[in-house]
Amino acid sequence: MTRTIPERMQAVQLEENGGPLLVRQIPVPRPGPGEVLIRMAASPINPSDLFFLAGNYAFQKPFPVVPGLEGSGTVVDAGKGLVPRMWMGKRVACAAAQTSDGTWAEYMVTSAMLCFPLPKNLSLEQGAMLIVNPMTALSFFDIAKSEKHAAIVSTAAASALGRMIIRLGRQNGLPVINIVRRQEQVELLESLGAQYVLNSLDEGFPDRLHTLAHQLKATLILDAVGGGLTQQLLDAAPFGGTVLVYSNLSGEPCIFNAETLIFGDKKVAGFFLSNQAAKKSFIARLWFTQRVKKLATEALQTAVQKKLPLTAVQEALEIYQTNMTAGKVLLVANPAEVPQTGTTDEGA
Amino acid sequence: MTRTIPERMQAVQLEENGGPLLVRQIPVPRPGPGEVLIRMAASPINPSDLFFLAGNYAFQKPFPVVPGLEGSGTVVDAGKGLVPRMWMGKRVACAAAQTSDGTWAEYMVTSAMLCFPLPKNLSLEQGAMLIVNPMTALSFFDIAKSEKHAAIVSTAAASALGRMIIRLGRQNGLPVINIVRRQEQVELLESLGAQYVLNSLDEGFPDRLHTLAHQLKATLILDAVGGGLTQQLLDAAPFGGTVLVYSNLSGEPCIFNAETLIFGDKKVAGFFLSNQAAKKSFIARLWFTQRVKKLATEALQTAVQKKLPLTAVQEALEIYQTNMTAGKVLLVANPAEVPQTGTTDEGA
Repeated sequence: MTRTIPERMQAVQLEENGGPLLVRQIPVPRPGPGEVLIRMAASPINPSDLFFLAGNYAFQKPFPVVPGLEGSGTVVDAGKGLVPRMWMGKRVACAAAQTSDGTWAEYMVTSAMLCFPLPKNLSLEQGAMLIVNPMTALSFFDIAKSEKHAAIVSTAAASALGRMIIRLGRQNGLPVINIVRRQEQVELLESLGAQYVLNSLDEGFPDRLHTLAHQLKATLILDAVGGGLTQQLLDAAPFGGTVLVYSNLSGEPCIFNAETLIFGDKKVAGFFLSNQAAKKSFIARLWFTQRVKKLATEALQTAVQKKLPLTAVQEALEIYQTNMTAGKVLLVANPAEVPQTGTTDEGA
Repeated sequence: MTRTIPERMQAVQLEENGGPLLVRQIPVPRPGPGEVLIRMAASPINPSDLFFLAGNYAFQKPFPVVPGLEGSGTVVDAGKGLVPRMWMGKRVACAAAQTSDGTWAEYMVTSAMLCFPLPKNLSLEQGAMLIVNPMTALSFFDIAKSEKHAAIVSTAAASALGRMIIRLGRQNGLPVINIVRRQEQVELLESLGAQYVLNSLDEGFPDRLHTLAHQLKATLILDAVGGGLTQQLLDAAPFGGTVLVYSNLSGEPCIFNAETLIFGDKKVAGFFLSNQAAKKSFIARLWFTQRVKKLATEALQTAVQKKLPLTAVQEALEIYQTNMTAGKVLLVANPAEVPQTGTTDEGA
């Protein structure tokens, strides 16, 4: 049941860290053993893509490289192996492999282990954003549960991930203290039903955070910002608290006083989704995937502000970076599968 | 079997953080329920005492306060309770309670739970230094074992604690990479049998540490220094490594890049002996004490450079701070029990 696969495709390419994004015609790759070829439908721009473009990501790939860490599409060719054959013909959510080209193209080859089929009721649009943020959000709650944290502090809380954390918190009965940096974000999150929202630029923020974190016993602190905020988070954390650093939106190094850590029995740990996934068994990963699919149409839904074709990648980046709070910007490789109309509005 | 206990005693007092140390006659305290009165023999000056004197310790006590965190002596009075009565008349190692006066005096009241009897073959001199450093060193090896670290990186490695770590490493077959800041410390540690010694001021230190840490899989890194060294330690740590911050000899805040933590699956955790002890059950603490006693005359021995009376506390501090590597400076409250002659020379 092979379909007609063209020889060449449209793809976004990067030639150097921080360089411009070029739209080119390049050969369609072929799947090797354990791999699948996906006809891409759509891909989001995530903060992790911005880090990748700047050369500050976990890995670098040889240039020229197609960026894009996650997306959705249809498996149109399969390499040797049971799992690739199982996914053949299926609509999937997919992540790019660490050693080959990414999702911002009409076709992508990746490991079959980095794909999972989408349920019937889920669009390729929402399916394109089902890995990076949803799996991170769910991992945070798994950590909260296994380490018995009574509440969570969430930073950059107006982000797509931040909003999933708010919804999962409500669903799991786990209080979430949300930290944002603008008054309109406070109002937005409150309108989405968030109970505790603090503006880190407000006077008295450190004291309010300290009081609230102690009151709710919020010993799991999710730090997406770094820089001086890390010290504020550590100071506010109750005895035994953990600051989980998962991004560095400030671009500044983390700073803290050793005494806070030593006497308060606190720690700062790094969190990276790929590292977490690598620790899971195959069965545990399948089970995790099932849970993501189940929550995909509710707690793990993502708002989309704009859908643009691959050729408009530069414009897409600018729109996203101007206002991340307004929702994801999607790069659409196949407009027939991801129509321009009907932009998703997330449920609160 | 109460002995004649005087009404008043000689004691060192501090009236404000960073203030001068005064030698005064003050009333001998009385033990309450669960407490014992100890006729002190000797007390060391530890880095943690320096932090306490400066007001940078885990807790502050109301002024005026008798400093001194550990020592040795003889229990001469017991408050209500089984354990206080069990310790009555015994030579003990002891730690000061968090809410009352410390060890730099002729007498001290503390919780019976913060004392343990000394074995017959152990002098009151060595017994005075059996808690802070030995229990910390042993805790590090317990952590190394329970978290399955293949090797250890030790900073400020020429300290009393650093030398215990070298000996315990050899005893446990666990390689230790020792970091010091002076060439004579490199030579000293090598003469004591240390296999890997690096000078952090040498050119090429970061690369050498990185290579060695990866070669030996040294994923447990003990950081007594903080400041910029923390970043160097994190950079050098193999994937999944833990930096355990237990002191801050540099006086500088710890700094590190979030990326190192996130992508390298690394963490920075605080270590404080009292917090660790509080997590142990009574039985576990007794067992831990037994192990310390067993190792007291070998791996956990401490070199002493000078013994001075309480009245010479200011001089004692200066000698210690001038050259910590030369050995501990002991404050002797009872010269009959801790003779001036026969300074301990540690075994390698």
